[in-house]
Amino acid sequence: MALTMHTASIPVFQHMLRNLTHLLDKAEAHATARKFDPSALTTFRLAPDMLPLTRQIQIACDGPKNGVMRISGVEAPKFEDNEATFAELKARIQKTLDYLAGVPADALNGTEDKEITFPVGKERTLTMKAQNYLLTWVMPNFYFHITTAYAILRHNGVELGKQDYLVGARA
Amino acid sequence: MALTMHTASIPVFQHMLRNLTHLLDKAEAHATARKFDPSALTTFRLAPDMLPLTRQIQIACDGPKNGVMRISGVEAPKFEDNEATFAELKARIQKTLDYLAGVPADALNGTEDKEITFPVGKERTLTMKAQNYLLTWVMPNFYFHITTAYAILRHNGVELGKQDYLVGARA
Repeated sequence: MALTMHTASIPVFQHMLRNLTHLLDKAEAHATARKFDPSALTTFRLAPDMLPLTRQIQIACDGPKNGVMRISGVEAPKFEDNEATFAELKARIQKTLDYLAGVPADALNGTEDKEITFPVGKERTLTMKAQNYLLTWVMPNFYFHITTAYAILRHNGVELGKQDYLVGARA
Repeated sequence: MALTMHTASIPVFQHMLRNLTHLLDKAEAHATARKFDPSALTTFRLAPDMLPLTRQIQIACDGPKNGVMRISGVEAPKFEDNEATFAELKARIQKTLDYLAGVPADALNGTEDKEITFPVGKERTLTMKAQNYLLTWVMPNFYFHITTAYAILRHNGVELGKQDYLVGARA
C-alpha cells in the first residue's frame, strides 16, 4: 500500500495515543499499589521550567488534532485543558482518538503541497507545505510530548520499558 | 511533491540529527561556561535503569542508519559505541549523516510493502512491511532517543527550549 498523507499520519497518531493511554494505566496502577497521591505524578516536571505531566498529555493530544485539522480542513473540537486526574487525561486521549477516527483518508490524501499556516507561540505564525508541516513539525512535537511523559514516569519509578512505549498494551 | 518512502525518512532523519548536534553544542558550551566535567552530562541517566546520554545518542544514530539499511539494502558502516566526549558523539552523528546522504532516493521509493525482519532485543525478531517498520518502529524509536537526550540536558539545567529541538541552530 503506497505511503500517503493519511497512512503517514492518522494510524501513527492512533497507535501512539493508545500506547500513551497504556503508559497512564501503568502509572495509575503504580500510584495505587504504592498508595501515594497520583497528583505527585501528574504535576511532576523534569525541570522547573518544563511542563508537568498533565500538560505533556494535553499537548500530545492537541498536536495531532490541530495538525490533522489544518491539513484536512475537518473541524476539530476544542478542549479546555482542565484535566487533572489520570481518568481525565485518558478521556482527553479518547476524545482525540474519536476526532481522528472521523477524518476520512480522502481529506488528507493529496495535500502534500497545501500551504499550512500555524501559530508558533502567541505572537507569530509559520507557513509550510503540508508534507513538511506533518513530518518536521507535527510529528517531532507529538513524539516529544509522549516521550517526555514517559521520561517523567520512568524518573519517578513507574515500571515501564521501551516496549510499553512502542507497542502499548501488547507489550 | 508526493510523499514517498524517501521524503518520509532521510530528510527527516537529517533534520533531526542536525538539531541533535545543536543540542550537544549547547550542552558542551554550558559545561565549559560552568566549568564542570562534561562527563557529568554524558553519563547522566534519568533513572538508574535508563541509558545514559552517550547511549541515547548512539542509538539515535543507529536507528535511522540500520532502518534505512534494512529498507534500502544499502550497506551501512558499523560503529563501535565507544564515544565518551561531546566531540566524539558529534562525530558519530556526522558519520551517520554521511551514510544517509549516500543513500539514493530510488533505493527507498516503492519499498512500502517490502518485508523487513529486524532484531528486537537479543533473542527475537519481528517482521513488518517497510512502511509500518518506518512509521511505527524506526520513527518512534528515533524520536524517543532524541527527546530523552533533550530531557537529560534540560533536567541538568542546560538552557534549551523546544525551538532548539525543532529547528536546531536556526532557533
